[in-house]
Amino acid sequence: MVDKIASDSPESAPLLVVGSVAFDNVITPYGSQEGILGGAASYCSFAASYFAQPRMVGVIGNDFGEEYISRLRNRDIDLEGLQVDSSGPTFFWKGKYHENFNRRDTLDIQLNVFEKFRPDLPQNYLDSKFVLLGNIHPALQMHVLDQLEGSPFVVADTIDLWIEIERNALLELIKRVSLFVINDTEAEELTEESNIILAGQKLRDLGPETVIIKKGEHGAILFHENGSFALPAYPVTELRDPTGAGDSFAGALIGRLASRNRTDFSAIKDAMVYGTCTASLTVEAFGCDRLESAGTKEIKKRVEELKSIISLD
Amino acid sequence: MVDKIASDSPESAPLLVVGSVAFDNVITPYGSQEGILGGAASYCSFAASYFAQPRMVGVIGNDFGEEYISRLRNRDIDLEGLQVDSSGPTFFWKGKYHENFNRRDTLDIQLNVFEKFRPDLPQNYLDSKFVLLGNIHPALQMHVLDQLEGSPFVVADTIDLWIEIERNALLELIKRVSLFVINDTEAEELTEESNIILAGQKLRDLGPETVIIKKGEHGAILFHENGSFALPAYPVTELRDPTGAGDSFAGALIGRLASRNRTDFSAIKDAMVYGTCTASLTVEAFGCDRLESAGTKEIKKRVEELKSIISLD
Repeated sequence: MVDKIASDSPESAPLLVVGSVAFDNVITPYGSQEGILGGAASYCSFAASYFAQPRMVGVIGNDFGEEYISRLRNRDIDLEGLQVDSSGPTFFWKGKYHENFNRRDTLDIQLNVFEKFRPDLPQNYLDSKFVLLGNIHPALQMHVLDQLEGSPFVVADTIDLWIEIERNALLELIKRVSLFVINDTEAEELTEESNIILAGQKLRDLGPETVIIKKGEHGAILFHENGSFALPAYPVTELRDPTGAGDSFAGALIGRLASRNRTDFSAIKDAMVYGTCTASLTVEAFGCDRLESAGTKEIKKRVEELKSIISLD
Repeated sequence: MVDKIASDSPESAPLLVVGSVAFDNVITPYGSQEGILGGAASYCSFAASYFAQPRMVGVIGNDFGEEYISRLRNRDIDLEGLQVDSSGPTFFWKGKYHENFNRRDTLDIQLNVFEKFRPDLPQNYLDSKFVLLGNIHPALQMHVLDQLEGSPFVVADTIDLWIEIERNALLELIKRVSLFVINDTEAEELTEESNIILAGQKLRDLGPETVIIKKGEHGAILFHENGSFALPAYPVTELRDPTGAGDSFAGALIGRLASRNRTDFSAIKDAMVYGTCTASLTVEAFGCDRLESAGTKEIKKRVEELKSIISLD
């Protein structure tokens, strides 16, 4: 059994994580690294694994060796839903971050086996009560929801690409999402509203009861019917590679919620603190390295620090 | 007696505010307005007047009519130190804000009587225990400190201009400042450090026990020997004119501290909340209009709202 952060619930609710699995080549002002295990499903699952046992759905190709499988297994991630397509290599992305880390360019992208990926769920996964739809085509995210039993708590993330080329499919999906996570520039693009407070309200009008707008180094804002909540970022001083920060945030967030089997306003605020601190680990090294190796002790230490930083006392 | 926000101290400590007094012409994406009562000393004093009675030091010219004097008097601001120079008009500034309000251009600047301004203090002001040095030449800020008795609590603000052309004078001043307030881009410029956490630490190494880095719509971060504190901005949805936001923040901050006669870590955090909420009023209208008319009730309402927005409960 891997180490997990203790919850106040007797048992964790079943958690499903869907997204891409990738190999990344990343260039940042700090350096570069090739063949990094990446993709939304990887970051989300690693992050969630500190709180619950994520059921991971994605596709890997013929270049995804046993050493990578082992890394996922070592964090007790359920891999029954991880599809293996030996017809080609794993999804590949190469990107470069600029001076201030705020902007990145995609230098190369090869969909490979991801091109035909269809997230069909194993029978065992249909009872998932918490679902994280990492960034994939909104029609595929919808396909996941169509298979699930009951009314799970659904967290979804997206990227600017889908806002630009699949706006209608995305809007249909959003209607069925419980908690929609989006970054500030994407929120502005989707709502055509530059004031972040108004953008958050507009996003809630699209369907989700809860919306979180991520602002990178400036933290995140939660919009909920009970009110709003603004959380600063954990104070990172050694930023190395921001890739996967958002996925780590969402993964830890839903992992924490699933582990407590709670979805109320107060629980979401608490989960944002865990999401923020877990994401702060991810960005301190290339790829998932720091996230995988950090351990619950480091996460808990940062949670206490962040709580102190936002405390008026 | 004007309305003030109640303090837990039996009496307010004497507060001095020094800075420019100006007439501004301002153009924003929302509209434009001419002949606005502005300048750091005006915004700082109006903001501080909700908490304490600021002693205002600045210079006005021959175009500064009785109606402007009345506006300051109506907020019970002590004008003994306000110098009248009838040899010319008041300092004039014309600026234009761009689409996102994040950048502004100075279109015209006429120093007028401000060019020969020397902040000599009336005898009655020498016992000030709290001092706000609004943005003026660092040598003039230093001249203020040289006149004061005892060891007052000194808050100082600056602008990029002095960092660029008077770095050494500014560094000398900073050594004598208790709480240095600076915005994020200026902090980076002064410390040559792009990470805001490291920049805050570097600024403390220059002398001030306490540093606050302002991030505009993203709030502010406090650096103190007891720890740090990150506060989001009050959620403004009707931004009209950001001029004077920083001065209002600093004015309310020191006003609140002076009214409680406290300078400890907890008191500074509390004062940041009042500063943030007072500044949020300023930006909702051109010039000082909303700041002057808001009243303590509106400030207290926003303080409760902001406290709720940062609460994990």
